[in-house]
Amino acid sequence: METRTLQGWQTSISRVISDGDTEDTLIRGHSLNELIGNATFAETMFLLLNGKMPTKKQGVVLDALLVSCIEHGIAPPSLIPRLYASYGTGLQHGIAGGISAFGEKMGALGEKMAKLMIDKLGEAAAQDDETLLTIAQQTVAEIMGSGERVPGFGIPLHSRDPRADRVIEIAKENGVYGTYCRFAGYLSDAITDHRSGRPVPLNIDGVCACIALDLGFNWRTTQMFLLTSRSVSMGAHYLEELSQDTIWRHIPADQIDYSGAVAKNRETNT
Amino acid sequence: METRTLQGWQTSISRVISDGDTEDTLIRGHSLNELIGNATFAETMFLLLNGKMPTKKQGVVLDALLVSCIEHGIAPPSLIPRLYASYGTGLQHGIAGGISAFGEKMGALGEKMAKLMIDKLGEAAAQDDETLLTIAQQTVAEIMGSGERVPGFGIPLHSRDPRADRVIEIAKENGVYGTYCRFAGYLSDAITDHRSGRPVPLNIDGVCACIALDLGFNWRTTQMFLLTSRSVSMGAHYLEELSQDTIWRHIPADQIDYSGAVAKNRETNT
Amino acid sequence: METRTLQGWQTSISRVISDGDTEDTLIRGHSLNELIGNATFAETMFLLLNGKMPTKKQGVVLDALLVSCIEHGIAPPSLIPRLYASYGTGLQHGIAGGISAFGEKMGALGEKMAKLMIDKLGEAAAQDDETLLTIAQQTVAEIMGSGERVPGFGIPLHSRDPRADRVIEIAKENGVYGTYCRFAGYLSDAITDHRSGRPVPLNIDGVCACIALDLGFNWRTTQMFLLTSRSVSMGAHYLEELSQDTIWRHIPADQIDYSGAVAKNRETNT
Amino acid sequence: METRTLQGWQTSISRVISDGDTEDTLIRGHSLNELIGNATFAETMFLLLNGKMPTKKQGVVLDALLVSCIEHGIAPPSLIPRLYASYGTGLQHGIAGGISAFGEKMGALGEKMAKLMIDKLGEAAAQDDETLLTIAQQTVAEIMGSGERVPGFGIPLHSRDPRADRVIEIAKENGVYGTYCRFAGYLSDAITDHRSGRPVPLNIDGVCACIALDLGFNWRTTQMFLLTSRSVSMGAHYLEELSQDTIWRHIPADQIDYSGAVAKNRETNT
Repeated sequence: METRTLQGWQTSISRVISDGDTEDTLIRGHSLNELIGNATFAETMFLLLNGKMPTKKQGVVLDALLVSCIEHGIAPPSLIPRLYASYGTGLQHGIAGGISAFGEKMGALGEKMAKLMIDKLGEAAAQDDETLLTIAQQTVAEIMGSGERVPGFGIPLHSRDPRADRVIEIAKENGVYGTYCRFAGYLSDAITDHRSGRPVPLNIDGVCACIALDLGFNWRTTQMFLLTSRSVSMGAHYLEELSQDTIWRHIPADQIDYSGAVAKNRETNT
Repeated sequence: METRTLQGWQTSISRVISDGDTEDTLIRGHSLNELIGNATFAETMFLLLNGKMPTKKQGVVLDALLVSCIEHGIAPPSLIPRLYASYGTGLQHGIAGGISAFGEKMGALGEKMAKLMIDKLGEAAAQDDETLLTIAQQTVAEIMGSGERVPGFGIPLHSRDPRADRVIEIAKENGVYGTYCRFAGYLSDAITDHRSGRPVPLNIDGVCACIALDLGFNWRTTQMFLLTSRSVSMGAHYLEELSQDTIWRHIPADQIDYSGAVAKNRETNT
Repeated sequence: METRTLQGWQTSISRVISDGDTEDTLIRGHSLNELIGNATFAETMFLLLNGKMPTKKQGVVLDALLVSCIEHGIAPPSLIPRLYASYGTGLQHGIAGGISAFGEKMGALGEKMAKLMIDKLGEAAAQDDETLLTIAQQTVAEIMGSGERVPGFGIPLHSRDPRADRVIEIAKENGVYGTYCRFAGYLSDAITDHRSGRPVPLNIDGVCACIALDLGFNWRTTQMFLLTSRSVSMGAHYLEELSQDTIWRHIPADQIDYSGAVAKNRETNT
Repeated sequence: METRTLQGWQTSISRVISDGDTEDTLIRGHSLNELIGNATFAETMFLLLNGKMPTKKQGVVLDALLVSCIEHGIAPPSLIPRLYASYGTGLQHGIAGGISAFGEKMGALGEKMAKLMIDKLGEAAAQDDETLLTIAQQTVAEIMGSGERVPGFGIPLHSRDPRADRVIEIAKENGVYGTYCRFAGYLSDAITDHRSGRPVPLNIDGVCACIALDLGFNWRTTQMFLLTSRSVSMGAHYLEELSQDTIWRHIPADQIDYSGAVAKNRETNT
């Protein structure tokens, strides 16, 4: 286990240039000064995380994915910043609190699904439909057969996740509907079959996974689209709660059921 | 001090609709399903935080602002996520750590400048150049006269902040160069005069402030553009450090100068 | 504004010794190996934050203060970790979320009160009762006269804060009831007078402030006793929620009142 | 997957009593008012997390464990708060940043070791030495045979971890050296055998694990002793860095090796 110091950093992401003549930042070989005004945020995000500029169509699909994740009511990631606002904590800490709240039961399943697809299909996969169908059926049998859920499917508050459908549609229109999206479709079919015809819809985590992979991102990048995009909702809700000037959001004592020990005399500890 | 419970939430940001017929989220009155594929991320961010859709030109300027903030080498907000990666902490916690690191000496000055401009000019300001010049000179005299710095100006590593210049240029091209941008220009001139001709350039925090106000955002929104955009850099650096598999980034013992008490026998505490 | 690199660290807190013969950490000149088993946690906390070992009596008072802050039902700082548990986020992130939630409207007032007392009385203050009384009356008149609250007084859910009373009692019994505690008493009297006989009790933030100062801590240390101690409650509540296996604690849609725009056709943005 | 709302909380940890007559908090059946001044912080922490008061000897051992974890130079968990201080971020956010930094490669191994011991021995284990020896040898063969490390052993900067040795010693003196501590000893022997006589010392994470279990805590509680205790170090280092008034701790540009693409003309994205 060789540990590292705070010296010795290597990066291929960017280089800050400040040599008297030129003041610029080189991002993956591109001048930031030139990107400003010429590339959209989604395109530049693609460049940073993927290493190269997207095509216009890839940029459109990434924009669609980011928009689809941006807001979902006062869902937990935006509830947390509202609570922080009522405690008088700063905006950046409220957003950090919301982002850090993502866990195994919230948000993590996109990455799990992306990993699963890479495990089953490999990177830069280009399987034909028959193969994808077979692998999807095996995968679902394996996971659901052992009583688990397939990551990326299912949503508590909706019968379908309309956002997922729309993003898939945009992906098709822009030629980004590739092997991983198709595989997600076969997974969906296989789940429905496994449940005797009752479907479990692809959710927003799942769509992040298959779109990210078909856009050429590493599977570990999957969660980024949710985190960056949802930070806007977190900020909006924080600022709204702040403007409402609420104080100390809390559970009233009578809504807490105490099931612990009753009062006792202090035990002698010997 | 009337405190609030966890019930009773009011929002004008969005409404999740799930009534059998319709599955959608209404954002500021707009269908999310329709926004996906039709609006860019920057436009939808504008909608969420500003309450209405931007014009195309406003969207272009917001895109430019977001791109300008997206990456600046392994600057502290992206250094923190790299450290977290070397400790084996999850991506979302690394980004939260980077976002929460913004403080009085980093990132906060954009909001301070926006607040200052609102204090001096009011909201929806539309002063003429002569008035702006006068107020700018008074403001600089007041602040620098008491030994303080004017927020939004100055950058440690560059002689100018090329990002700020580019965004201002895009704002001019798109008709978003309004009263607050102009006021920032007069502040810059007044600072240069106060320092006998040595300029202090508008920085990225400053450009967030004046562009945000000229786009009609509340001054409290200023920091959002930096936070959301820079989260991409945080993620990119976290993922790169993770791929380098570094372990436990730390300060070597010999780089720490201990100036405390020398070894003493245990004091009797009585 | 001279910035600093990641090299060049100076500390008088501790020194890790590992030279073949000795493996130890010197804390403020004391051997950690010797402290283990000989000093209590409270005494060692005192040593770290105050620079010297406490007397036995000071240690007893610090223990009392820490115990008084350790748990207060599912108050917000422990609510946050419970939410995180229901989202499947790790224990350390749940606690970090709870600690970071402390803000201007929660927890911050202890430090404000300590700062106020230092501003009014100076450091290492030793004023007589008459002087303290006069300063307390002036301070209350000044603050409440301008419509503000005196920090460190008032608690939403109790008529008195019994914890504060008990800690003050222990401080008296152990000779730690010094100038700052006495001043807090005079502030309390002055507040009652100002409100025509209706008292506002000293709260847990307030007791942290006056005990910390009478124990010789710097006023900036005030919040530490709350943060460290309450982290235990945060952990206990996180772990209990985890054991209850709750999933995705959220606000039901029907408890959210949407006051925003009604559905509109997509505006043309031009 | 049944989700939960923000209503309906059950706890056996504590109950806040405020009924006019009594103002108190009942912690696991004990009056907080009585605990203040009568129980140490370590004893009360035991009560909260374990459900019952410790014996005096158990309290002494927990104190020793907490003291052993409290400070270890400017190690990463305390480095992070120092960085935050230099960015002007608040104390509570600095500590939250330090606590949230604990991950798979730092701090997590105590919990892993505790889980491993429960998996191998069961809860409330009382095996005899011969059985423990056999299980330890099997466990080490299994883990190290597959190229993994046994969690809870090994420390980068020391040849031994003197803190671990001292805590084990205190545990022996106080009758808390039980099955799990003995098992850790056999694991240590088996590791040494596996490495042909070269020992890997029990570390602070490991000692948290075996002491926690021998004190009767649930294995999931293991990390709490490190987190709560080390928060003191985090606060001390934050406050010291703040007092040094350092600004913007960063990596100098020349210490960053850019291995990315060289400048290129903007690609046409079509």
